[in-house]
Amino acid sequence: MNPFNVSRPVCIIGLGLIGGSLLRDLAGLKHPVFGYNRSTSGTRRAVKQGYDVSNDLPEVLQRAEREQALIVIAVPFSAVFEVLDEVAAHAPSCGITDVVSVKAPVYKAVLAHGMESRYVGGHPMAGTAHSGWDASHTGLFRGAAWAVTYDYAAESERVERCWTELFTDVVKLISMVKAEAMPVRVKKHDEAVARVSHLPHVIAEALAVTGDRGGILSQSLAAGSFKDATRVAGTRPELVRQMCETNSAAVVKAIDEFMGVLEHARDNLAAPEPSIAKLADAGFAARTRLEARTGARRESVSPVKISSRPVLRLSLGGHGWVDQLRQAESMGGRIEVF
Amino acid sequence: MNPFNVSRPVCIIGLGLIGGSLLRDLAGLKHPVFGYNRSTSGTRRAVKQGYDVSNDLPEVLQRAEREQALIVIAVPFSAVFEVLDEVAAHAPSCGITDVVSVKAPVYKAVLAHGMESRYVGGHPMAGTAHSGWDASHTGLFRGAAWAVTYDYAAESERVERCWTELFTDVVKLISMVKAEAMPVRVKKHDEAVARVSHLPHVIAEALAVTGDRGGILSQSLAAGSFKDATRVAGTRPELVRQMCETNSAAVVKAIDEFMGVLEHARDNLAAPEPSIAKLADAGFAARTRLEARTGARRESVSPVKISSRPVLRLSLGGHGWVDQLRQAESMGGRIEVF
Repeated sequence: MNPFNVSRPVCIIGLGLIGGSLLRDLAGLKHPVFGYNRSTSGTRRAVKQGYDVSNDLPEVLQRAEREQALIVIAVPFSAVFEVLDEVAAHAPSCGITDVVSVKAPVYKAVLAHGMESRYVGGHPMAGTAHSGWDASHTGLFRGAAWAVTYDYAAESERVERCWTELFTDVVKLISMVKAEAMPVRVKKHDEAVARVSHLPHVIAEALAVTGDRGGILSQSLAAGSFKDATRVAGTRPELVRQMCETNSAAVVKAIDEFMGVLEHARDNLAAPEPSIAKLADAGFAARTRLEARTGARRESVSPVKISSRPVLRLSLGGHGWVDQLRQAESMGGRIEVF
Repeated sequence: MNPFNVSRPVCIIGLGLIGGSLLRDLAGLKHPVFGYNRSTSGTRRAVKQGYDVSNDLPEVLQRAEREQALIVIAVPFSAVFEVLDEVAAHAPSCGITDVVSVKAPVYKAVLAHGMESRYVGGHPMAGTAHSGWDASHTGLFRGAAWAVTYDYAAESERVERCWTELFTDVVKLISMVKAEAMPVRVKKHDEAVARVSHLPHVIAEALAVTGDRGGILSQSLAAGSFKDATRVAGTRPELVRQMCETNSAAVVKAIDEFMGVLEHARDNLAAPEPSIAKLADAGFAARTRLEARTGARRESVSPVKISSRPVLRLSLGGHGWVDQLRQAESMGGRIEVF
């Protein structure tokens, strides 16, 4: 087997946008991959397209156990606890990862199942306003950040070797689909995504509502700035609820910080000499920094996409490797393993 | 001359993104068009590219007077008063329109010059985060809303015939570049753009700042939702200042309304049973309505772009025509003239 590839077959539970796209990528690379889809019609379409997919969850998990597959949980958060019950019953020794966008409640469920030594959390920062198997496609993860959690290693006196092998395989899985593995602990992850992912969703919803209240003339005049800013308000409401409600404390904190910035600007604009200079300068500088950091990946015209995230190459299990994960986390860096 | 075209030459004062793109479109249609650019190097580049451009403002305006051209003021608001002084001095009988994004202060300057009977305000809802002659290009206005103000006609007992002819020419100019003329009075325009254009700019700046404060980990995890929502924070700060500071009362009102919506959602999310259901449902519905309204224009896969704005075909100066403009305004409609 290719030493850069995952060392075992991959079993994906849930074939929506994320799970489906992962299955398509791995199958395209001829890596052994199979999956479970709850929907009968979705399963039928996937099978017709030549994918190894079933809608019998116990059967799929029993096969994962037989083949010692890496299980990827790609269901909405509301179904995670139930899936872990099934994994406990039918695949009691497989390594597990997931792609749910809030990590604390998933980790809590993992701890409740006593599965922490065979779990590595994951979260690909990729997605569109669309969802479901039919929206999934190859190449979705190319260049995207993909958070991998390592709380178990950070908190344990002695890390089980099978956990290190699992972590290695999760990082390799991420590399195989051309995403960038970013080590981050659960709490720091949830705070960061509250700020850069959940907050933008909440704001987009509130702006869409405010625009709508302006009536038909405002809507008819709405152009690029309004459309871009409200794009993610097109996300299915239940997905927004799952993100924000399972991460509510961090999201409330992010909203408060944002409202503080906005209120300050509002007061300057309501002054006898209206000014928005401070906010406009600060916002422009912040956006310019963001572009400098991520620009090489998406906006570059070069056909060779070079990541602007610093990379650390690690030998997992080697001396001080957990400290190196912390270091990567502190600089928003990505890791490669060998 | 083609009866669907502007009946006179067009003289554009200021060749940035908007003025430059308008000049390129009209020249491409072989309509007589010339212009003034303040920058010597920009003028030199435009002349080299074959355009009829000069950086001598009095000379350009004297030529406009000789040829009875339609003058389009496309300078930043801070330069409008001065340009109107020059127009008064060198082109005392030409019809005037403009493309500045806030209409009340421009109209005030027009009234101060006693030019209201030869002025029709305009505002194309088109633009990018880029600016200047080198960013201008043909086709910028295709399918865009282009507000045209008619306060003079709404307020006058008897409308001068030359004003009606000017209004007709401005609407034809808009049609020539494939934009959609939307009649709207100054105050209603400024309130609507505060909501759907200036507010999104302010929010994008505040979100960019809030994301930036999360530090390097947050920035490295930022993906599509954050990047889309902060795109217009890349607009030059002085442009944001001109928009927001000249329309401060309406922008403050829009910010307050937005903060009210956000605060309500924040409180629901901070409750013992965190919920964002109401906002997520309302935001999704609002965004869906927006897409239904404007979707045919941008997101459609059909090569034939059909506007989703209702159209009224008017004979200007005919019976009840000002009421028809009001009717178009109240339904966010576009007009065509014959």
